Amino acid sequence: MQQSGPSSPSCSTSDCFPLRTLNTAACGSETMAEPQKREPADLSRMRPIVIFYGFYLLCFGLGVACVVCVCLWNSKWRGGFAWDGSSLQFNWHPVLMVTGLVVVYGNGAVLYRIPLTWGQNKLPWKLLHAALMLLALVLSIVGLCAVFDFHNAQKTPNLYSIHSWIGIAATALFAMQWVAGMAGFLLPCSPISLRKRLKPMHVWLGGSILTLSIAACISGINEKLFFVLKGINMTQPYSALPPEALLGNSLGVLIVAFGLVVLKILSTREWQRPDSRPEDMAYTPLLQEENE
Amino acid sequence: MQQSGPSSPSCSTSDCFPLRTLNTAACGSETMAEPQKREPADLSRMRPIVIFYGFYLLCFGLGVACVVCVCLWNSKWRGGFAWDGSSLQFNWHPVLMVTGLVVVYGNGAVLYRIPLTWGQNKLPWKLLHAALMLLALVLSIVGLCAVFDFHNAQKTPNLYSIHSWIGIAATALFAMQWVAGMAGFLLPCSPISLRKRLKPMHVWLGGSILTLSIAACISGINEKLFFVLKGINMTQPYSALPPEALLGNSLGVLIVAFGLVVLKILSTREWQRPDSRPEDMAYTPLLQEENE
Repeated sequence: MQQSGPSSPSCSTSDCFPLRTLNTAACGSETMAEPQKREPADLSRMRPIVIFYGFYLLCFGLGVACVVCVCLWNSKWRGGFAWDGSSLQFNWHPVLMVTGLVVVYGNGAVLYRIPLTWGQNKLPWKLLHAALMLLALVLSIVGLCAVFDFHNAQKTPNLYSIHSWIGIAATALFAMQWVAGMAGFLLPCSPISLRKRLKPMHVWLGGSILTLSIAACISGINEKLFFVLKGINMTQPYSALPPEALLGNSLGVLIVAFGLVVLKILSTREWQRPDSRPEDMAYTPLLQEENE
Repeated sequence: MQQSGPSSPSCSTSDCFPLRTLNTAACGSETMAEPQKREPADLSRMRPIVIFYGFYLLCFGLGVACVVCVCLWNSKWRGGFAWDGSSLQFNWHPVLMVTGLVVVYGNGAVLYRIPLTWGQNKLPWKLLHAALMLLALVLSIVGLCAVFDFHNAQKTPNLYSIHSWIGIAATALFAMQWVAGMAGFLLPCSPISLRKRLKPMHVWLGGSILTLSIAACISGINEKLFFVLKGINMTQPYSALPPEALLGNSLGVLIVAFGLVVLKILSTREWQRPDSRPEDMAYTPLLQEENE
């Protein structure tokens, strides 16, 4: 079932760049008859790649900042980590959910958008995408175990707040998405017609899970800061914006910024792997794309 | 500057439906040479329209359910409405934010996707889009005034929680987006090159504002339910999931479902107004589209 992708050593037009070039190649246009305009055209084709890498660096930097911020908050202000049913066990929850369900998940989602991967066989990138998503899923599930264990030890009910409903929905949908993605896109026996039908749903559900994760994170940070910054025992309340509140709020801002950058990368058609764009499917041997 | 749009009385192919048809018309393909295949092709062109209206009805129904739910919660469980600095004034905040920043906003955003509007001059729909968004913005601003007034009357600080940071960011971005959209797309003097550049940013920012609104709503509902359902004075705590908690959580679920359906409608390329799709721009007189 394995065939090589659109991976000629000298990167072809359809591998390396967009739509405008493909349409003119297929339909013919004035630009094809004007070789003297090639230089600016090459430059204009490079522009989206340069802009992409700007966004990708921003995405990566914001992701690192999210992880640093959530670790700092829970280690320095919340007393660190343990797995003993105490509040130190709870501290694993925000760290693992933010790292797994937001940062690793978001980086796994934008993987196919990196132009570096376009001229190459898709299979290794599919495997890396699946592996990153599995890592994100495992981190999220351990993060949920941390809070369930903590609640059970403290005799606190589970899953009553809207924060927990949205968070559990995000993780459950993510688990279903991973299994369906594995079966639909990686098992050699899955038919091409199924892959074609599954793909738009997979992409949309991927973005929706990230939206749910962002909502769950913001409501979780808000709830936690109201719980711990009550202004009793000489401590400042949340409303006085003490340093911990500023750190927690900044984490929320970083998560939202990271999520919006990931959603921007996912929704920009110029940055889609060329053989994945609907209008390019007509010019790409379908069997070649689908069976990589 | 006004020119009629692609509005022939008998709806032309490019008005009525998608990409596949447009590409074949421009580039030629086997399907054009096979009249016996017209019947199934027509049926397959109708399918996305039927599916769209299914999603649109779902979007509309969820929007109505959100408004009913938030009004019911605040009138029946929270004591109703007033504008006197009391908690009854606060009750306007969730009602106006959910109605304005989520429901009216979402319905305004998907307006261009309704196939009924495609064969017609774009200008009236642009004006309706701008009017709906202005209504959404006014409702949101009045909703913010309600909570600021309430806080000031109660001597409570404003804008310290991450819920308020995300909410105010959503409203501020929305106001900027409305002004930029008005200046860029409705003023006759705005150049076409500006419109072309502005459009992808306008669409992306539109979806981002909705994502921020969802996160602000979920964190706000979560916070409110923890505040009011403390389990004192013979009332049940949030953790016991009394009827009010179930209603509030259901409102959260409805808001998330509405938001995801709107984002699905906005991101599905088959449901974009044909003359707005990047690959169709090549076959559409740009002046005609941009100056409507």
